[in-house]
Amino acid sequence: MKICLIGAGRIGTVHAIAIASDESAVLHSVVDFHQEAADQLAKKYNAITLNLDEAFNNKEIDAFIIASSTPTHADLIEQCARIGKPVFCEKPIDLSLDRALSCAKAVEESGIVCMLGFNRRFDPHMASFKNKVDANVIGSIQSLIITSHDPEPPSMEYIASSGGLFHDMMIHDFDMACWILNDTPSSIYVAAKATNDDIANQGDVDTASVILNMKRGAIVTIINGRQAAFGYDQRIEAFGETGMLQVKNELEDNVVLSNALGINQAKSQHFFLERYEKAYHNELLHFMKSFQSGSKPSVDISDGVLALRIAEAAQKSLKTGNPVNL
Amino acid sequence: MKICLIGAGRIGTVHAIAIASDESAVLHSVVDFHQEAADQLAKKYNAITLNLDEAFNNKEIDAFIIASSTPTHADLIEQCARIGKPVFCEKPIDLSLDRALSCAKAVEESGIVCMLGFNRRFDPHMASFKNKVDANVIGSIQSLIITSHDPEPPSMEYIASSGGLFHDMMIHDFDMACWILNDTPSSIYVAAKATNDDIANQGDVDTASVILNMKRGAIVTIINGRQAAFGYDQRIEAFGETGMLQVKNELEDNVVLSNALGINQAKSQHFFLERYEKAYHNELLHFMKSFQSGSKPSVDISDGVLALRIAEAAQKSLKTGNPVNL
Amino acid sequence: MKICLIGAGRIGTVHAIAIASDESAVLHSVVDFHQEAADQLAKKYNAITLNLDEAFNNKEIDAFIIASSTPTHADLIEQCARIGKPVFCEKPIDLSLDRALSCAKAVEESGIVCMLGFNRRFDPHMASFKNKVDANVIGSIQSLIITSHDPEPPSMEYIASSGGLFHDMMIHDFDMACWILNDTPSSIYVAAKATNDDIANQGDVDTASVILNMKRGAIVTIINGRQAAFGYDQRIEAFGETGMLQVKNELEDNVVLSNALGINQAKSQHFFLERYEKAYHNELLHFMKSFQSGSKPSVDISDGVLALRIAEAAQKSLKTGNPVNL
Amino acid sequence: MKICLIGAGRIGTVHAIAIASDESAVLHSVVDFHQEAADQLAKKYNAITLNLDEAFNNKEIDAFIIASSTPTHADLIEQCARIGKPVFCEKPIDLSLDRALSCAKAVEESGIVCMLGFNRRFDPHMASFKNKVDANVIGSIQSLIITSHDPEPPSMEYIASSGGLFHDMMIHDFDMACWILNDTPSSIYVAAKATNDDIANQGDVDTASVILNMKRGAIVTIINGRQAAFGYDQRIEAFGETGMLQVKNELEDNVVLSNALGINQAKSQHFFLERYEKAYHNELLHFMKSFQSGSKPSVDISDGVLALRIAEAAQKSLKTGNPVNL
Repeated sequence: MKICLIGAGRIGTVHAIAIASDESAVLHSVVDFHQEAADQLAKKYNAITLNLDEAFNNKEIDAFIIASSTPTHADLIEQCARIGKPVFCEKPIDLSLDRALSCAKAVEESGIVCMLGFNRRFDPHMASFKNKVDANVIGSIQSLIITSHDPEPPSMEYIASSGGLFHDMMIHDFDMACWILNDTPSSIYVAAKATNDDIANQGDVDTASVILNMKRGAIVTIINGRQAAFGYDQRIEAFGETGMLQVKNELEDNVVLSNALGINQAKSQHFFLERYEKAYHNELLHFMKSFQSGSKPSVDISDGVLALRIAEAAQKSLKTGNPVNL
Repeated sequence: MKICLIGAGRIGTVHAIAIASDESAVLHSVVDFHQEAADQLAKKYNAITLNLDEAFNNKEIDAFIIASSTPTHADLIEQCARIGKPVFCEKPIDLSLDRALSCAKAVEESGIVCMLGFNRRFDPHMASFKNKVDANVIGSIQSLIITSHDPEPPSMEYIASSGGLFHDMMIHDFDMACWILNDTPSSIYVAAKATNDDIANQGDVDTASVILNMKRGAIVTIINGRQAAFGYDQRIEAFGETGMLQVKNELEDNVVLSNALGINQAKSQHFFLERYEKAYHNELLHFMKSFQSGSKPSVDISDGVLALRIAEAAQKSLKTGNPVNL
Repeated sequence: MKICLIGAGRIGTVHAIAIASDESAVLHSVVDFHQEAADQLAKKYNAITLNLDEAFNNKEIDAFIIASSTPTHADLIEQCARIGKPVFCEKPIDLSLDRALSCAKAVEESGIVCMLGFNRRFDPHMASFKNKVDANVIGSIQSLIITSHDPEPPSMEYIASSGGLFHDMMIHDFDMACWILNDTPSSIYVAAKATNDDIANQGDVDTASVILNMKRGAIVTIINGRQAAFGYDQRIEAFGETGMLQVKNELEDNVVLSNALGINQAKSQHFFLERYEKAYHNELLHFMKSFQSGSKPSVDISDGVLALRIAEAAQKSLKTGNPVNL
Repeated sequence: MKICLIGAGRIGTVHAIAIASDESAVLHSVVDFHQEAADQLAKKYNAITLNLDEAFNNKEIDAFIIASSTPTHADLIEQCARIGKPVFCEKPIDLSLDRALSCAKAVEESGIVCMLGFNRRFDPHMASFKNKVDANVIGSIQSLIITSHDPEPPSMEYIASSGGLFHDMMIHDFDMACWILNDTPSSIYVAAKATNDDIANQGDVDTASVILNMKRGAIVTIINGRQAAFGYDQRIEAFGETGMLQVKNELEDNVVLSNALGINQAKSQHFFLERYEKAYHNELLHFMKSFQSGSKPSVDISDGVLALRIAEAAQKSLKTGNPVNL
């Protein structure tokens, strides 16, 4: 199984490592506008570099991984659809719901496998949580609370092209809520603000509490923030008829210091590359395995469309100050 | 300092113990329609029993503690106002905001001390949390999350006369939010439902997520539920510029069992009498101390009015499905 | 039930509070060489003050509580034996095993109830631990580890009259080991040293690791230290066939601060008066209850003799550097 | 840097993965008596298979990794010494201290790098603990407690050739104690027994408490057991002048279930392959890095000799029932 990786940046490198550790997959080629980045990554794994045209015309390539910038996603997915090859693409499909919808239509018509990179679903802790929910360990879920804080705000350049908190950050939590509950929201209400002046000047927010009423009755509460002094804060909590399930943060290490200042443990793992290292690995193995076995991956382009739809409703609720029906 | 206790039930008994442990206070008399209950409690502490008229005419009594049923609160407070004697009253003042307002007016005009039993403020853990917030340990607060689950639903008789989830249960959390943030809400949005059919039949809810936008900018999220299999769930979490503060649940004991099923600890302390044992004690000591020292207690009838006002707005938001301005 | 309290110091006061909270017991009288201390405590509980002769000749007194200094214990217990009245005495019986043995003989011959104040047995956490061991929750116990650190060394005056680490501090752990395992040791090995120069100058040690081989096969390890910067350290851990049981420290509060320095909790409760507040209360209720019901208390003078015997063997092992048989 | 791996079993495979993830090292060849195992591992990493003679005569090989059975270690290390090539060898050097000493002499005379696989030193948690001790975070160490329980006893075949609990299992803890404290023991006392009849029949023990008096004054207590129902138990605890440091167990996941049975977390990670996955990786990177940079690895054959010396003294203490000087 020969894989072409489009995008040789931070996440592209993570995917290259996952490919290398798979028994039957091999990194065939790397595509990146920054030729140097492409060369470096390709060399490390004995792969070649290609430009986009060459890649989409290369008969040897079995599948594509898209880890380039967001605005390129929809076009590249459609290219894969056109040539009928399976594709794994980082989320989001696009910042525009309309564009995502047309892309999803192209995917659907082509019949290709298109897996979307909602990496958290593949985190061992989140997956164990989901398994327990599905196994009815706490009965039917009445309430779900998702807490996500980044360790620090991204650069203002990043903010400017991110689509805002809901499309960039909370979109993961929208996907988590729908995935865990096997459900979709009927309405959304947003309370949010910018505590950071630079973010405020960009017209974005950095602190939000959001309530989703789900169609089958559960109430979902999402807490987001762009800054947590103690590291990446990734918690989730479900209340069911017979109990509560929680995922706690992973700390940097298990050392405990007890002294005159109290009992002290390490901070949470710093950010997504550390916290979701295994998730990135597992999600790509899942893509390669489903590709090999001919089965559908557990997360596809329709999940990306759904999350975008909710993000757009969130944006509308923020503007109007009222709940928005979905 | 001679104290007359009105109400010899469960909470009245808790207050009698607190009086007994105070160096300068003494339980002078007990009033209860159930003469037997009054007699029993009075006997244990060498106090006398009185009827209401006798109590309000007794010149020896220095202060009143009202631990009778909710519908009697406002009248009894007003009686104390009329005779100019300090009073401690269990929350709420009344289920009707209008009645509470007229009662508060009578208190104000009389100039008496009227402390309201928002016991959680006197819990050592909550008080330590509040102290740290006030000491700016995590900088200015951007987000506050209050989680409260009862271990099991009350009886349907209780539900029928309780005024509903917001007036009976979440009213504590409304008070906590205002107290911790030294602020009041500008708007409230409620998502709630009844998962229990009996509660639904009473027209009440048992599961709720609520967002308050506070006037100075913080976002408060409150999660309430009438049932938690693992005991009383009383947690609070504040996010500030430089960190997060949390109060965790107190467990029944500190024993940990590790075996083939995993790592197991005891449940949370069962309910409010266990969890807030020290809080009940501390709040009454505070009342007696402020009475003796002539200082104002830290929580008074205006706090009760504020919490009721928010509860009423919550009820309205639940009905309309929209946020309600305060 | 009228109780005479001998010793109006710190622990005597704790016992007076326990008596006051019992439904059927009453503090009849207080005896102390420091008349002022006796007067103050007596006044608070409407009791009288007596000297020793008056106390032992007073026909109204039903039982004695001895909370005076260690050298007085054996004589006072024997006085109670002579007049046939039940007695609760703080540990140890005496620093000399011989004196303790003669005292125990007098108690035995008199047939009186003589309960010894091994308070830890009545701590709710330790009692829950013991209950689980007895209920075979982890099968037969193979290994028991007891860790005890004081927050800071006592005064050198205290050290001088304490009998040393083994008689003063580890004696509690010797009792715990025998109580939890329902067993006695066949041998003991001690490794110990003084890290504090003042303690070294007194010929005492402040840091010790001790191994007891128990008769029925379990291995007990005891870790003691006179100083822990993070508060009173009182942990216990049992390994059995099917699992491990632990008692963890109780912290000063349940507040968690997460910031750039890590995840921080409060220190352990400072010392024995805080940590064993409920234990002191429960042990005295147990004494009064067994006295009323005519049943034997669960801990008596023979337990005190056993613990002393082990302490003496510990002292010998320290001197010789070899294990000592018991 | 071309590496020859001797031993294609479980640990050999772990080392092969570490080599593959290193930027500059390559698995050159695999040696194993089981040709099939050698072939399979070699094929996966594009390496060749060799027999021992071929390997030691191959000029291309830069370094050897020995992951074969214990009885082969000393001979293979000496072969490396003879041809002057760096070698990483799994612990122990040999079960006989004499044989280890002669091997160490050969290594010393040859001047080769010989790193020994005390993997725990490279565990991120243990390394963080050690760093804090060295950074004087808790002042000078007075007491060190190491707890190690395997999840289940090994096979009786394994036990038969293991050299017994002290040479096979506690040898890790002897190394840890010396490493953490930068010290060596002056005496050792052992209390141990077999709770498992099969192990008893082999003349071995499965439960032990051991005290080491260290030359510079610290007291080390080691608790070992061959069976823990809750998984691999790997804890360590140091008491210093100004505080306590602990390494806690790593659990299988961070999911917490709270229900009517209490608060439940996952078991500890099952065994050494899971718990020390990163340690195995890090130790080999350390070997390859020190080899490349020409620096000495942080753990060498003398550490292996020291640990064996202590294990032998432990065995002697077990037999005599008395402490043994070192």
